[in-house]
Amino acid sequence: MSEAADLDVIASPEPVIAVRDAEDHLNPDFIAAVETAIRANDQFGLRALAADLHEADTGDLLETINPDERATFIQLLGEDFDYTALTEMDEATRLQVLEDLPTEAIAEGLGELDSDDAVYILEDMDEEDQAAILDELPYADRAQLQKALDYPEESAGRRMQSEFIAVAQFWTVGQTIDYMREARDLPDSFYEIYVVDPAFKLLGSVHLDKILRTKRREKVTSIMEETRQAVLATEDQEEVARRFERYNLVSSAVVDENERLVGVLTVDDIVDVIQEEAEEDLRALAGVGDEEISDTVMTIARSRFAWLVVNLGTAILASVVIALFEETIEAMVALAVLMPIVASMGGNAGTQTMTVAVRGIATQELGTRNLMRVLNREILVSALNGVALAILIGLTAWLWFDSPGLGVVIGGSIVINMLFAGLSGLLIPIALDRLNVDPAIASSVFVTTVTDVVGFFAFLGIAALWFGLPL
Amino acid sequence: MSEAADLDVIASPEPVIAVRDAEDHLNPDFIAAVETAIRANDQFGLRALAADLHEADTGDLLETINPDERATFIQLLGEDFDYTALTEMDEATRLQVLEDLPTEAIAEGLGELDSDDAVYILEDMDEEDQAAILDELPYADRAQLQKALDYPEESAGRRMQSEFIAVAQFWTVGQTIDYMREARDLPDSFYEIYVVDPAFKLLGSVHLDKILRTKRREKVTSIMEETRQAVLATEDQEEVARRFERYNLVSSAVVDENERLVGVLTVDDIVDVIQEEAEEDLRALAGVGDEEISDTVMTIARSRFAWLVVNLGTAILASVVIALFEETIEAMVALAVLMPIVASMGGNAGTQTMTVAVRGIATQELGTRNLMRVLNREILVSALNGVALAILIGLTAWLWFDSPGLGVVIGGSIVINMLFAGLSGLLIPIALDRLNVDPAIASSVFVTTVTDVVGFFAFLGIAALWFGLPL
Repeated sequence: MSEAADLDVIASPEPVIAVRDAEDHLNPDFIAAVETAIRANDQFGLRALAADLHEADTGDLLETINPDERATFIQLLGEDFDYTALTEMDEATRLQVLEDLPTEAIAEGLGELDSDDAVYILEDMDEEDQAAILDELPYADRAQLQKALDYPEESAGRRMQSEFIAVAQFWTVGQTIDYMREARDLPDSFYEIYVVDPAFKLLGSVHLDKILRTKRREKVTSIMEETRQAVLATEDQEEVARRFERYNLVSSAVVDENERLVGVLTVDDIVDVIQEEAEEDLRALAGVGDEEISDTVMTIARSRFAWLVVNLGTAILASVVIALFEETIEAMVALAVLMPIVASMGGNAGTQTMTVAVRGIATQELGTRNLMRVLNREILVSALNGVALAILIGLTAWLWFDSPGLGVVIGGSIVINMLFAGLSGLLIPIALDRLNVDPAIASSVFVTTVTDVVGFFAFLGIAALWFGLPL
Repeated sequence: MSEAADLDVIASPEPVIAVRDAEDHLNPDFIAAVETAIRANDQFGLRALAADLHEADTGDLLETINPDERATFIQLLGEDFDYTALTEMDEATRLQVLEDLPTEAIAEGLGELDSDDAVYILEDMDEEDQAAILDELPYADRAQLQKALDYPEESAGRRMQSEFIAVAQFWTVGQTIDYMREARDLPDSFYEIYVVDPAFKLLGSVHLDKILRTKRREKVTSIMEETRQAVLATEDQEEVARRFERYNLVSSAVVDENERLVGVLTVDDIVDVIQEEAEEDLRALAGVGDEEISDTVMTIARSRFAWLVVNLGTAILASVVIALFEETIEAMVALAVLMPIVASMGGNAGTQTMTVAVRGIATQELGTRNLMRVLNREILVSALNGVALAILIGLTAWLWFDSPGLGVVIGGSIVINMLFAGLSGLLIPIALDRLNVDPAIASSVFVTTVTDVVGFFAFLGIAALWFGLPL
């Protein structure tokens, strides 16, 4: 037994400690081993543990270890550290690591990367540091990165890689394969090659599997897919993401304003954009910006405060409505007890409709063509749920305060507020979208204002009329 | 001029009407032309318009046209209709279309598809229809689809395609290329091939670009990447999606419990899962299920009603707290005017923290290791914003009701409620996650309950003590 175990250890010099635990988190034992190696300055031990990690695991590891030890980790790994790992970290951690590393080391590390990864790391740095790093790079790399950085933020030009394979339209499949076998400075991985005319204008693309399935003597143009609609380098990444998603693209050529091929976008960059986009709506609706788990207290407090102040406006408006009925409440204090129910039910129903509307607009499933149908449905849903809730709440109020009248009043105001909730939940996002305001950011303030104001006004107003109370 | 224009029309027999407008929606003129062709039974005209569409555009088009005309559209297109388009539609529309089509037509259409697309269409149908369609298929196809359908819902086995290329470990690059040139029944498109041992156990994968860059005489094993961790066919699609996202995968082998290769997952299937997952959290937090724009009134009303009833419980609980202070409010009705502000500010702050926490848990950025740090930060953020809002609201209340005491009371209760909001917004999702309850679904009810109850209790209680009011 023990002999076999010994042999096993000799045969596998890789780390015996698993990188991730059963729940897919980094394994605490693994982290501890890495930290011990860093503190002991044990270059050999650290390389045995971390040199062969996937860049995503290295990124997670860097986020997890003590901030002071991150730069040491990178310098101990030396040539075994793949700077792609920096693209897998959140922004705040990445910037902190970059602060702690010497400019020359960063420049050397970035020089090894595909241009899209290098740009991703450079773009969040301040201009001075950016310039210092670019200065260290060879001219060709520098020019390439500078060109990408000149494109607007969040554009296709920023996300694309400038390494790709383009062949002339008169080439055969055989020539293309031979060229790829000899060429240097190819992208790390690629899924299609591009066919261009002598002016480098994009004609079409050829998937690699097509090349492999085709005889050598065939012309590339015979298996080429003509480009229907190339991505423009200045196009916004969200629009590009929507196209990738809709047409199930794995990669796409990027062209400049003269239809010349300038880069390639691959789906792994776009997956992040797609996820961010869905998450952005969620965060916007809840009033949190793009804060990250690693942000500082002040950054977070400030970004959330703005939203709270805007909502304070809504709350005060609701209070003003209640103040109109001070005497009514004084005459019948049960109204004060019940009134938050009406507002709160309206708020919840409004949020439901609004969430569906905001996502429908984002994914383009909700548009002019089906608006009337969706509106009718929304009115019916609100009416149905409004009546059902009205009965439930009306009975509760009747039994609680032994007053059937109070049951009728709260039931009626629930139905009214549910209808306003459904209508405003649908129409406010659509109106904001027409006005080119992001519905995810602004809708919920308006919708809550409607459901609060209508809720309090309807309930207290109907109560005053029904019971003949002072106004 | 006019001559050139004429020539242009002759040279391009494709539809002159653009499929999409500037905003990337389907062009209304295009839709109208399609509808006219359907109503005129104009097979030739319809094919000219729609035969060459991308399946995603065909799917959108089918969702847009009159439900009664969808089956006619498909039958007029005949062989030019690509059933992949059905995978690009929402579920309700897809099921309606399938109802209207003859079983034989569906079976024939599905026979042409890659297995993952066929399974995607079949899995939502009721068992009887499913069996009827499977019966029409040739034995090999039927067995393949049945096997995929036997995997659990939302598992990798359901999403994978069973078409892939596997080669033996002793093959050379040259043999592999020759094999691909000759083989039939290859997948529609693929990005890597797999190396297996004689028992079909997965050894590793080779990206197509590696094959194209390598000399013919090399062994495939020399350029193969060893599989670190293959996807299990029974694994949940969300876990798989997280791995695709983390490791930037474009495709991945799927193996059975004996490590034998059974299928391939590609990123285009996974992109949908990633998006759905982020969107699911958004919908869960707002209390809307996976309703679709095309669902019926009753389906939607029912799914939303459950959430409203649960929230009604929260609202009634808040009312019970207010009822404790009926006499206090009767003695000072300004309290009724101001009390919703305290609850509403707490609710908004709690939702902010909760949203960040729920996403942090989903993306595994928030875990045991950084919980204490995040908790400390959350307390500081809540305290900072609580004090800032307290000053703002306190001054407003003082000026409005000309009572500095009322300002102090509301300010103090705001600080208290903001702290409870921050704590519950963070700790409730984490506790639910530990209890294996989806934090996105259940958090907001609990958080709102805390902020409502604490808000009303703190404000009315402090007021009663401060002003010596009756309880």
